[in-house]
Amino acid sequence: MKNFVVHQLLHHAVITYPEQEIISGNTRLTFKTFYDRVVKLANSLSKRGVKKGTVLGVLEVNTHRFLELHYASSMLGAVLHTINFRLAPEQMVYSMKHAGDEWVFVSELFAPAIKPILSQFPNWVYMGEDKNEELSDGSHHFFLYESLIEEGEKKEPDFAKETNEKDIFSIFYTTGTTGKPKGIRYTHHAILHGAIQLFHHLAMHKYGARVSSRDVYMPLIPFFHIHAWGMAFFPLYIGAKLVLPGAADPAHQLELIKREKVSWMNMVPTQLQMLLNQEGFENIKVLTGGSPFASGIAQQAHRAGIQFSLIYGGSDQLATAISVVPENVDPSSPEAMEWRRVGMRPLPLVEISIKDKEGKEVPHDGKTLGSVWVRSPWLPEGYYKEPEITKEHFIDGWFRTGDLGFFYENHSLYVADREGDAIKSGGEWIPTGMLEAVISEYPAVEQVAVIPEKNEQWGQRPLAVIKATEKVTGQQLSDFLLTKVKEGKLAKFWIPDNYLFVDEIPLTSAGKLNKKALRKQYGN
Amino acid sequence: MKNFVVHQLLHHAVITYPEQEIISGNTRLTFKTFYDRVVKLANSLSKRGVKKGTVLGVLEVNTHRFLELHYASSMLGAVLHTINFRLAPEQMVYSMKHAGDEWVFVSELFAPAIKPILSQFPNWVYMGEDKNEELSDGSHHFFLYESLIEEGEKKEPDFAKETNEKDIFSIFYTTGTTGKPKGIRYTHHAILHGAIQLFHHLAMHKYGARVSSRDVYMPLIPFFHIHAWGMAFFPLYIGAKLVLPGAADPAHQLELIKREKVSWMNMVPTQLQMLLNQEGFENIKVLTGGSPFASGIAQQAHRAGIQFSLIYGGSDQLATAISVVPENVDPSSPEAMEWRRVGMRPLPLVEISIKDKEGKEVPHDGKTLGSVWVRSPWLPEGYYKEPEITKEHFIDGWFRTGDLGFFYENHSLYVADREGDAIKSGGEWIPTGMLEAVISEYPAVEQVAVIPEKNEQWGQRPLAVIKATEKVTGQQLSDFLLTKVKEGKLAKFWIPDNYLFVDEIPLTSAGKLNKKALRKQYGN
Repeated sequence: MKNFVVHQLLHHAVITYPEQEIISGNTRLTFKTFYDRVVKLANSLSKRGVKKGTVLGVLEVNTHRFLELHYASSMLGAVLHTINFRLAPEQMVYSMKHAGDEWVFVSELFAPAIKPILSQFPNWVYMGEDKNEELSDGSHHFFLYESLIEEGEKKEPDFAKETNEKDIFSIFYTTGTTGKPKGIRYTHHAILHGAIQLFHHLAMHKYGARVSSRDVYMPLIPFFHIHAWGMAFFPLYIGAKLVLPGAADPAHQLELIKREKVSWMNMVPTQLQMLLNQEGFENIKVLTGGSPFASGIAQQAHRAGIQFSLIYGGSDQLATAISVVPENVDPSSPEAMEWRRVGMRPLPLVEISIKDKEGKEVPHDGKTLGSVWVRSPWLPEGYYKEPEITKEHFIDGWFRTGDLGFFYENHSLYVADREGDAIKSGGEWIPTGMLEAVISEYPAVEQVAVIPEKNEQWGQRPLAVIKATEKVTGQQLSDFLLTKVKEGKLAKFWIPDNYLFVDEIPLTSAGKLNKKALRKQYGN
Repeated sequence: MKNFVVHQLLHHAVITYPEQEIISGNTRLTFKTFYDRVVKLANSLSKRGVKKGTVLGVLEVNTHRFLELHYASSMLGAVLHTINFRLAPEQMVYSMKHAGDEWVFVSELFAPAIKPILSQFPNWVYMGEDKNEELSDGSHHFFLYESLIEEGEKKEPDFAKETNEKDIFSIFYTTGTTGKPKGIRYTHHAILHGAIQLFHHLAMHKYGARVSSRDVYMPLIPFFHIHAWGMAFFPLYIGAKLVLPGAADPAHQLELIKREKVSWMNMVPTQLQMLLNQEGFENIKVLTGGSPFASGIAQQAHRAGIQFSLIYGGSDQLATAISVVPENVDPSSPEAMEWRRVGMRPLPLVEISIKDKEGKEVPHDGKTLGSVWVRSPWLPEGYYKEPEITKEHFIDGWFRTGDLGFFYENHSLYVADREGDAIKSGGEWIPTGMLEAVISEYPAVEQVAVIPEKNEQWGQRPLAVIKATEKVTGQQLSDFLLTKVKEGKLAKFWIPDNYLFVDEIPLTSAGKLNKKALRKQYGN
C-alpha cells in the first residue's frame, strides 16, 4: 500500500499493539476490540448502502463511538462530516445540508437539538445505549448504533483496499467571525500529514508538550475541530493509550486523569483555566492555543507543573507552528516561559511569510507587523462550493490567514491579532491581541477584550472590555500599562482611553473572545 | 508547494534556523552559508548543462561537499548517484555505467581509484582544495569543485520550483551477497518519508537513541548508504547541528565528538566496537544495525552510558523497524537491555508479515521462523533495469526481504538470519544469526560466524568460525551453549559440531560478516 489513508493506521495499530487501550468514560476497549467494532460497523453500513462519497454527519462529543466512525468511514470511502455543534441551530442545519449529509449519527446528548430537523435528513443513527422512543417515531429511517455493530459481519468492506490518499476523508464547517459557515474538506493525505507532523514536531522539542509512545492521551479539543487536533489518529499511530472524556466536566475530567494516569492533553486556554481551578490538576503536558494565552494562566500552570506548548493553526490551514524555547535560552529561565507563550516555530515543511500592504516581506525585527501567509503540503484546496471566498484566501498555493503578526530577529513568529480586529489609531496599527496579553498580566484581570471606539481626532481608539476577579479601576490599569511601556512591551499610544468592566465576556463557538458580539454591544 | 522535495528542507532550514551550524572537519558553515554555496553550485552546474535527469556520481566520504551535492542536485532535478565505494573496482565502474553517470564528483581520497577510468566518463569534478595535476591532464573535462561554486551566481535554477516529489532523487548500488551490483532508485517522496519517518519514530520512544532538536548529530554511516540513514536530511529538517566526520578514524571521531559536543551518532556495530575501545567515548545516543549486535558490545556500551537502538531495514526497503522496550518492561532492567538488542517494532505505516513456505502467516509465538515480507509507503519500485530480479522480490506491493525471522507474542519482530545463511539440519532450520548472538555472549568471543558443513547423516551441520580475544576451546564453548539450552535460548541440536579459530573474519562492503567468503574458504 503506497497510500497513506486513515484506516491504514488502525491496521498498523491492531497488528502491532493489539492490547493497547482506548478508554471512553466507563467503556474500556483494546485496539483489537475497537477494530472488531469498526469492521462490523463498516460492514453493516456498507450493506445499507453507504459507499464511496456518502456523507456521514456526526453530532457527538469525544467518545469511542465517534472515533469508530472515523475508521469505519475511511474503510467505506465515505466522507465524515464532523458537525460543529457550537454553531447556532440554523447554521448547523445549513452546514448539514451544504455538506450533503445522507446519514446523521447523533448521541443522546444532542437528541433535543435534532428533534425539529428529523424530517430533513433521510437516515438517522442513534448512538445512545437504548432506543429513543421520542425520536424513532417511524416517520424516517432510524437505526441504533449498537445494533448496527451487532448485525455487522467481521469482514472489511471491499472498498477498504481501494481508498486513495487523495480521496476526501472529512468535511468541517467553521464560522470565522462573519457570514455563513464555510466548509473545508480534508483529503486522507492532508489530514494525516498535517495532524501527525504536529506530533512529530512536538516529539523532537525537549520542553513543553513533548509526546512519547508511553504517554496517556486525553483530548479535550472536540473531534469536530480538526479531529481533536489530530488526536483521532495519533495514539493509534504510535501505539499509546487514549482516554476519551465524552461530556465530562472539569471535575470528572480530573477523575479520569487520576484513574487512567493521563499525562498529555490538549485544550483551549479557557479549559486550562477551569482545570487549574480544580484541586490536584498537576504535572500534565498540555498543548493549547486558539486564543491569546494570558501570562497569569501561564504562571499558574507553571506552578502546577504543567508543561505546555502553544499551537498556531486553524481549520482552514491545519497545524502551522508551535511555540518553542530557542536554542540559546536556558529552558528553566523566566525568559523561556515567555517563549513558550509567544514564540512560534513553523513545523518542518511549513513556510510562513509576513507581508506588508504591497505584498513585500516585512523585516524580521521583532516589531514590523504584516499579514501572515502560510504554505504547506497539507493546505486544503479552499472552501467547499465557495469559489469567491476561496479566491480571496487561497492564492498561488498560499493561504492568507487573516492574522497580523511579526517575526522576531531569530525568525520565530508572533501572532498579534486578527486583521479585522486590529485598531487603526492615527494611521498606526494597534494589535489588540498583543495589547490584551499585556493587560491580562495585571493580577485582577481574568479576561480582557480590546475593541475599537470611534474617535474624531484619531479615527479609532482602543476600548478595553474587562472581566475582573476583584475591584480595579481604569486608572490603575493605565498606570500599570505605563510601567509596561517603560519595559518596552507596548507603545504608549496603545494604552486604552476607556475601560469597561463587565460580568461576562461572550465567547465564540471555538472558545475565543467574540469580538464581533462585543463590537455590536459596546463598540461604535 | 504541495510537494515534498529534498531542497524544500533547505529552504525551511535557512529561513527558520539560518545560524545553525554544519561542521565538516575544520570547515564551519551555517545553514545560511551552506545554502549560498548550494545555490551557486547548482547555478554553475546548470550553466554547464546539468538538467533534469542528468546523473551525478559522487565518490566521497561524509563531508559538507557531498551534502551540498544532495541539495544542488535536487534543485536541478538531477539524479544523485551515491557511489558505493566499498564495491570492488570493476563493480564500481559497472555501477557508474549502469546508472549512466554523466558527471563524476571525486575527492582527493579517491583520486588513485579513478585514475584508470578517467577516459570512461565525460565530466569530472575534483573536490579537493587544489588542482590535481595528475588527474587534470587535459584529455577530458575536468572541473574544480570550489571554482564551480566561486563562478556560480546566487540564483536558484528555474527548475527548483518544478521538481516533483515523484521524480527520482538518487540511485544507489547494493551487492547483496551474490552477483553483480543491483541499482535502486529513490524518489524524493520515498527517500524523505522513509528517512524522516525513522527519526519521527525515534523521537517518540523514550529510551534508546531518542532524537531531539537540541541534539548534535554525527553520522558515521556513509552517505552512500541511504543517505547516511537519512542524516543528509534530518538535521536541516529539525534545525539541529550536524557534524560530518569525513575520513576521520576513531581517535579523530572522538576529538570531533568532544569538540562539537556530539550527542547522537549512527554506525554499524563494528564501528561502535572500535569507538568503545577509545578512552572517553561515553554518554552518546547511538543508532546501530546492519549486522547482529553481540551482547558483549551491548553490555560494554551500556556501561559507557551509550543509549542505543537498533534499526532494521536496508537499501532495497529503506527503514522498516527499530528496537524498543515494550511498555510492560521496566526500562532500567536487564530484560530491557535485551529488548533494545533484539525486539523490533515496525515504524508506523510499515507492515511486516512473516510467511511460511506456503505463504501463510506464521503464528506470533516467539519461535516459528518464516520469511520476512515488508510493505510501506516508501518502498522502492524495484531494481533498476533488472525486471527479473525485481519480480522475485517485489510482489503485489510487498518486498520479500530475504530474511528469516519470527514474531514474539507481543508482536515484536526478531530477525534471525538471512534465508541463504540458515542451516538445514535433519530437516530443521538452524538460524545462524540467532546462534551467533548466543555464542557471542561468551566473554572471549569477539566475532563469530556460523556456516554450514556438509554432513552425511543430517545434511548440514553448523561450523562456528570464531575470532577470540583469548584462548578458548570448542569444548568450553559447547559447555557454555549447553547452559544456554537450559535457559531456553537455543535448541540443543543447534550446538555446533565443530569450531574453527581464526585471526580475522572477512566483512562485506557494508561491514557485515562475509559469509559467502567464509563458506568459500572454510565450508564444504
